[in-house]
This record gives sequence, structure tokens and C-alpha cells, in this order.
Amino acid sequence: MTEIEKLTGGRPVAIVGAGLVGAGWAVVYARAGLRVKVFDTNPEITAKAIPLIRSQLVGLHRHGLVQEDPATIVARVSTVDTLAEAVEGVAYVQESVLERVDVKRGLMEQLDALAGPDLIVGSSTSGIPGSAFALGLGLSPRVLIVHPVNPPYLVPVVELVPSPETSQQTLAFADRLMQAVGQTVVHVRKEVEGFVLNRLQAVLLREAWALVEEGVASCEDVDKTVRDGLGWRWSFMGPFETIDLNAPGGVADYAQRLGGLYQRIADSRRHEQPWGQPLIGQVEAERREYLSQADLESRRAWRDERLMAFAAARKHPI
Amino acid sequence: MTEIEKLTGGRPVAIVGAGLVGAGWAVVYARAGLRVKVFDTNPEITAKAIPLIRSQLVGLHRHGLVQEDPATIVARVSTVDTLAEAVEGVAYVQESVLERVDVKRGLMEQLDALAGPDLIVGSSTSGIPGSAFALGLGLSPRVLIVHPVNPPYLVPVVELVPSPETSQQTLAFADRLMQAVGQTVVHVRKEVEGFVLNRLQAVLLREAWALVEEGVASCEDVDKTVRDGLGWRWSFMGPFETIDLNAPGGVADYAQRLGGLYQRIADSRRHEQPWGQPLIGQVEAERREYLSQADLESRRAWRDERLMAFAAARKHPI
Repeated sequence: MTEIEKLTGGRPVAIVGAGLVGAGWAVVYARAGLRVKVFDTNPEITAKAIPLIRSQLVGLHRHGLVQEDPATIVARVSTVDTLAEAVEGVAYVQESVLERVDVKRGLMEQLDALAGPDLIVGSSTSGIPGSAFALGLGLSPRVLIVHPVNPPYLVPVVELVPSPETSQQTLAFADRLMQAVGQTVVHVRKEVEGFVLNRLQAVLLREAWALVEEGVASCEDVDKTVRDGLGWRWSFMGPFETIDLNAPGGVADYAQRLGGLYQRIADSRRHEQPWGQPLIGQVEAERREYLSQADLESRRAWRDERLMAFAAARKHPI
Repeated sequence: MTEIEKLTGGRPVAIVGAGLVGAGWAVVYARAGLRVKVFDTNPEITAKAIPLIRSQLVGLHRHGLVQEDPATIVARVSTVDTLAEAVEGVAYVQESVLERVDVKRGLMEQLDALAGPDLIVGSSTSGIPGSAFALGLGLSPRVLIVHPVNPPYLVPVVELVPSPETSQQTLAFADRLMQAVGQTVVHVRKEVEGFVLNRLQAVLLREAWALVEEGVASCEDVDKTVRDGLGWRWSFMGPFETIDLNAPGGVADYAQRLGGLYQRIADSRRHEQPWGQPLIGQVEAERREYLSQADLESRRAWRDERLMAFAAARKHPI
């Protein structure tokens, strides 16, 4: 029996919320061999889901990132018209509805009424902790945050964030399921805003914007330092491994040598307010020198092609 | 006439300071076709330089990152025994001596005495602004910081940081030279500590360490969010381009939607002090679970192999 069969007992999974994130998840589960039921409260979104999933799979296949025929994979995915049908007989629900506490709470209450005794629910939310919408229900021990990176079928990190009521068995199930479908699991042990990934991105962005605001560098030059500099090593080594290798004696040596400098740099600003209007306008104008508004869409397509090529190359790193 | 011949008039360049960084620069200049004279005040370092350069070129050749026979390239590099011989008849000096203000100032004074009227000097310093060691000399308008990423023959970003006395012609020369030898130029317009790249790394590291200290995630899981998450897009897109593509309306749209969140995240800490001893010990211990001290060296070799593979793949991205 495969790991997935052990975990699910052969049952399908449900996608609730079939926008970009939900459709991306459907790709992840279906290509791993699972049957997938897709539901959205908006029938127009539901109607677009399978064509979207199919086109994503075609792209993956073209880059050698799935071996099966896309049609075979898509055949595992079906759409349903009600939440009850979606949840009926499934092992797991991946929730990717609107980022609103009231919407998520409403859904949890519905799932609480519909769920069998061992249904597990993962929420894709990036910004709303489980404590804000998932407590105090019979279902609560079986709910946690399962937060992907966009798009989940290309970029493997998933952050698992339990609420105080999430059980250890739920966390263990989600960990095993995510690994079985090919994702990389990160355990976020406290419900901090932004979890881990978005916190790292946030602080880097705050510094990047401040450097532009101060006239230290242009947006494009800041971007170069990452895409032709920092991003190279961070594409296969995290920040701790990077510095562990960057001083003769390892990370403690590095920390002794450079800790003071990094403290001064990080402490050299107070972020008094969110990015304000003249600055946003300046950054927008600088970006438009390189990419017109009309070209955003095609640039996203270019980005996804590059990500797929990166993923394919990653499979055979040396 | 090639761009390099126009810039140098066929003259060589000099490497002053022949440790890892200087030797890395020698590879960059020699593979671009320049003759290179290498000098170090420590004859033991000088003696190791050409073997080091040769071994780096062999690795690059193996990965298809240089087409010429390494022996042909190495033949352009010679070592000399005095600073005067190093500087004689060269167009440009790349300085990579100790990161100490007194050492760099002493060298600038010597170069001031030896230099012809159009010699240009680039300093590899990562932490000492030109204002600290390069002002008030006849040479000063022709000195600037030319700060590489390690290793410069793999990772192309170079930060150019003029002092208040650096002339525009010097800056233009350095920009053209760096591009002619295949580097990516970033203009740092103010002498801020850490320039751009190390400031971005610094703030990300401060947040990463704080998350570990607070028990939000392990070092390894923080690393995963970067190497299997953020690092994927940052390997070919900078942070501004990334967010420009991540909201429907582009970067201004993104800033309106997420600016408040990022402000709260960045402002959620005060960095009161450098990383202290219990925390450094904890991070060291967590890293040692994954990599023993004895394996640091071989892991660096693995890293350099991966970087070369990345660089080779980068040449043919789709």
C-alpha cells in the first residue's frame, strides 16, 4: 500500500475554494494519484477550475515535471455543486476561500456539521491564524493551517501552523500527507503574523523600499543584488546554511564576526509607517520603465515558465 | 578593438591582495582575456595564488562556464614580488587586502606615490566606505569601491560605491569594465553600511534568528522556506519584480494591499542587541545536527559545484 493509500484509506480529497490557490492544490493532489472533488460557492469559478488545472498540467508535462499524460491526471478531478457533496467520503479538505475571518468561520461551522469523525481540514490562509476562526468546534482538533507558496505545484514549501486546539495526530497527518504529495514541510510552532516565509520576505522588502526611498539604489539595482547575487545561493541553501559555510569556523564563527554589523544594519531604521503615497508612486514608475502594465500578464507567464525550468533543473542539480 | 582593449589600452590589471577574493577576481579578469599581475605582501599567499586560480578554472571548464583551455587562461596570470612591479603599466588595480582601515589607507598612500595619472583603483571592501580610507590624495578621484559577491567568477553582482571624491569618469570606467568582464553592476549612490546586498541579507538574517530564538521554527525549517520557497523566485527575479507580478494591478496594487501587513511585521521587533551567547550556541547546535564541523569544507565544495551548475543552467534558462 502506498503512503497516500495508508493516509487516506483510498478516499478522495476535497478542494473548497477553487480560485488560483485551490486549483493549484488540485494539481498537487491529482498528480500524486489522489481523486479530487472541487467545490466553490461561485459556479463561474467552479466552471473555470478544470480547464485551469488542465492547462497547468500541460505546462508541467512539457517541462518534464509530470510523467503521466495530463488527461489521465485531470480525469481524477471532478467538480461538485454543494459543500456536502464535496465533503462526503473524503479524508481531507483543503480550504482556500476568501481571506476573511467571517467567511472562514462560516465555512468551519458548516464543515463541523457535515464532517465525519476523522475528517481533517487544512486552511491555505496566509494571514489569518487558526485561533481567529477555527476554535471551539467539535472539528477544531482536526483543523490546522496548511499554507502554500504560489503556485504549490511548482514551489514545494508548505507551512503547517496548528492552533492551540489542533491535535498532534492532525499535525502528524498533515506532515505525512504533504510529504507524500511531494511538498516540503515547515513547522510553524507559534501563530505569528506572516508565519515564517512572509516575515522573511516582509523584512527584506521593507529594507529594499527604504533603500530606494533614501536614494541609495534604484529598484532595478536592488533587484539585481538579489537575482544576480543573494538569490543564487538562496536557490539551494537557506540563510543558516549559507552563513554556516561563509566563515572558516561555521555559523558561530560567522555570528561572532558579523553579528555586530548585522545588528547595526537592522537597527539603523525605525519603520514608522507603511509605505506612503509618494514612495509607492516612485516605485511604480521605476517598475513601469522596465515593464508596462499591459505586459504584466505575459511577464507572469514568463515567470511561470522560468519556475518550471528551475524546478526541472532542480531535479538534476549536478 | 574589443571593449576591454578600448578601456585598458591593452594594458594588464593588477590584483593586490591575493587571498580568496583576489584570486577570484584574477579568474574573472583572466578569463575575460586580460593579463593579470598578482601581488600579496605575504609570499606564502602569493605562492598559492596561481594553483588556486588554476583549480577554480578547471572547475569552471568542467561545467562549461569557460570555453578556453584553463592552461591558456592561467598563462595570462603572473605573480610579482613588489607593489611597484604590480602597478607598473597597468590600467586598473583591484584591491582585496585586509578589512582594516589602517591597512587600506596605507596601501592607498603607497599607490598614490606609484600611480600613473590615469590608474584606477577598485577596492573589494564589504564594510569600509571609501570615505574612511581613500580621501585627500591625488589618487582619490580615481578610487572607488568595487565590491564583489563570493565567488566573483560565479556570482555576477558587483556593487560600485563611489566616495564623495570619486570622479564620474572613474565610475563610468568601472561600470564599463565590470560589464565587459561579465559582471552585473549595481550603483550604490550613498555610503551606507552594508551597501545594498549585505543590508538585505542582514535584515533577513535578523528576522531568521529572531524566529529561532522565539521558538517559532527551527533553523532547518527557516532554511527550507528560503531554499524551497522564496529562493526559487529570487533566483531569477528581484524582490520588486516579484511583487510587481504578485498582485493583479502590479506593484502599486501590491503595496496598497500588503503594505500595512509588512509594516506591522517589520515593526514587530526591536533588535536591542547583537545575537547573544545562548542563542549563538543554540543555532550552532542546530546546524551541527545537519553538518558536522569536520564536513564544513566538503560542504563548501558541494556548494561551489551547485553554484556552477546553477550558473551553467542560468545561461540556458528555458
